[in-house]
Amino acid sequence: MNAEGEPEAPAPQGLLVTNLTNIRYLTGFTGSAGMLFVLPDEAVLITDGRYGIQANEQIADAGAPATVVVAGAAKQKESAQELASELKSLALEAAHITWARQRAFDSDWFPSTTLVPTSGLVEGLRRIKDAGEVARIEEACRIADEALALVRPLLDDAPTEAEFGRVLDFEMRQLGAAGPSFETIVAAGPNAAKPHHRPGSERIGKGAPIVLDFGALVDGYCSDMTRTVWVRGVDDPDLRRAIEVVRVSQAAGVAAVAPGVKCSDVDKACREVISEAGWADAFVHGTGHGVGLDIHEAPSVAATSTDTLEVGHVVTVEPGVYLPGLGGVRIEDTVVVTEDGCRPLTSTPKDLP
Amino acid sequence: MNAEGEPEAPAPQGLLVTNLTNIRYLTGFTGSAGMLFVLPDEAVLITDGRYGIQANEQIADAGAPATVVVAGAAKQKESAQELASELKSLALEAAHITWARQRAFDSDWFPSTTLVPTSGLVEGLRRIKDAGEVARIEEACRIADEALALVRPLLDDAPTEAEFGRVLDFEMRQLGAAGPSFETIVAAGPNAAKPHHRPGSERIGKGAPIVLDFGALVDGYCSDMTRTVWVRGVDDPDLRRAIEVVRVSQAAGVAAVAPGVKCSDVDKACREVISEAGWADAFVHGTGHGVGLDIHEAPSVAATSTDTLEVGHVVTVEPGVYLPGLGGVRIEDTVVVTEDGCRPLTSTPKDLP
Repeated sequence: MNAEGEPEAPAPQGLLVTNLTNIRYLTGFTGSAGMLFVLPDEAVLITDGRYGIQANEQIADAGAPATVVVAGAAKQKESAQELASELKSLALEAAHITWARQRAFDSDWFPSTTLVPTSGLVEGLRRIKDAGEVARIEEACRIADEALALVRPLLDDAPTEAEFGRVLDFEMRQLGAAGPSFETIVAAGPNAAKPHHRPGSERIGKGAPIVLDFGALVDGYCSDMTRTVWVRGVDDPDLRRAIEVVRVSQAAGVAAVAPGVKCSDVDKACREVISEAGWADAFVHGTGHGVGLDIHEAPSVAATSTDTLEVGHVVTVEPGVYLPGLGGVRIEDTVVVTEDGCRPLTSTPKDLP
Repeated sequence: MNAEGEPEAPAPQGLLVTNLTNIRYLTGFTGSAGMLFVLPDEAVLITDGRYGIQANEQIADAGAPATVVVAGAAKQKESAQELASELKSLALEAAHITWARQRAFDSDWFPSTTLVPTSGLVEGLRRIKDAGEVARIEEACRIADEALALVRPLLDDAPTEAEFGRVLDFEMRQLGAAGPSFETIVAAGPNAAKPHHRPGSERIGKGAPIVLDFGALVDGYCSDMTRTVWVRGVDDPDLRRAIEVVRVSQAAGVAAVAPGVKCSDVDKACREVISEAGWADAFVHGTGHGVGLDIHEAPSVAATSTDTLEVGHVVTVEPGVYLPGLGGVRIEDTVVVTEDGCRPLTSTPKDLP
């Protein structure tokens, strides 16, 4: 936990949770401001007047053993100081607190408490999803599948990327999603060569792949799916071949997912197929990522990942080939790791034209 | 710039911008990952393979004098080290870099460069909006006004809060918004006592105020407006009086906005009216905030604010009264500070029933 050369810090006697998603995971609270002290004998959420009623309701609903302090800025500092007054050392979420705040805590809020950087403590708990969490992600996946089935025919009317994206988002909300789980990607023709293209005012034409990457949000949980579709065939032979190669690559990745398997080996399974096709350099991103309360969370499915899959992990498998100036292809499922492999939660057919 | 007791750092020879909105402001780049080195003779954006094409296009479109380095994680570190190799000291955005990243930069990436915490450098530039920025915010306000006018009649059919919210969001997108500028608030009846209530499955009933707080996003710029409406009058006499009090308070706040005026005095103008009505404790938040590329940015319009208004600032004025168990009222405009006062950019009538 210590960087080289620093004196050994005392073992932390408490954790101050500042990541709002982690606070939600631990307490049920969904407000946009708050900090949670997790101490040996109590957990205390400090938030402001906008969220007083809501915080008490949500924590009661979740049955979380936390108390709520509602206070303005000056009073928040006082309450925090009181909670930390007996602590020789307090763990902070180093990846979820700004340097500015850590400095203020160190010199002003808690001058006689040693602040200890930690990483991934709550995220570690969040990796393995319980049945209720999987059910929410599965419902988010189902909504995305159904929404795409409903709106797919509109592509034949040459909508703009932005028009198609907003109808897709609206359908997901009509079907019960709180909203999209991230900004929907609709990338047609040459735009599909950009993995994270924002839907624009270009009309979607015939004869070229259209990358649709989107998901739904259900009770805080995300889904994530990419399909590459087209209207009246694909003209370019390289892109036709890319569709086939990515399909085989993605299937190889899903087939590799199982408990005990290294995430880097799932990446390798996808990457080998694409490399053999001569497009090693055209697969410009990692193979996938965990999905849960965040659209991108642990574990990472990439060549550099040191993670190993476990039952209850929910990850994406999403290889792609991008040919600048020409177009691109990506196919992605969200899958849950099971005892004997994995179960895809997204189920839209991959040969959807 | 130094905390007490620290040795004086050398004057920074460069700034590493890590806040993505600040990067967008300076270069036009809208990707979700990147860091921008602003050095004496050059500006260099480092991003990853997902954003290579997009970064080059957007920087060219914006005419920004920046070059782009596209690289994976390992190569990003190398590029950054090369750029920083001659620097004795480098400024970081302390409020927009995590403690974890600062620690990695300090011990691993840039061990022989002194890292200097700075705050608000780019945000300072962003406070005063130029004509093009005001035009985008004004268009976002116009879209919000028009969308509300279109969907207001649906309230008579007793939709749920969530249903009404998603139709409002959809209309904003139909009218040209990229999306809502934040999660739309629809709070009816007792829910309106929660300033940041999330739209729920409750049907919107008659006889109680409904707080609608929402905005549109146009070319990256936000609008922000709140109106309190109702269906067939308001039954409770306290709430009827609150509507009148908040209306007078909000008008007093808008009337106080002018260049040279302290933001705290605008807050005071609003707060006095509400205090005189006996509801000092029921106005549980600040009066407003700046609006621009972020929905909440400088300057702050609050009792504790040390800011003074200047021509070109765009701020909200949004007093409210919240009566737990009963309901709430809030009214908000986005206004631009002009030579002789201010010009409201949101224009939906405040007596909209």
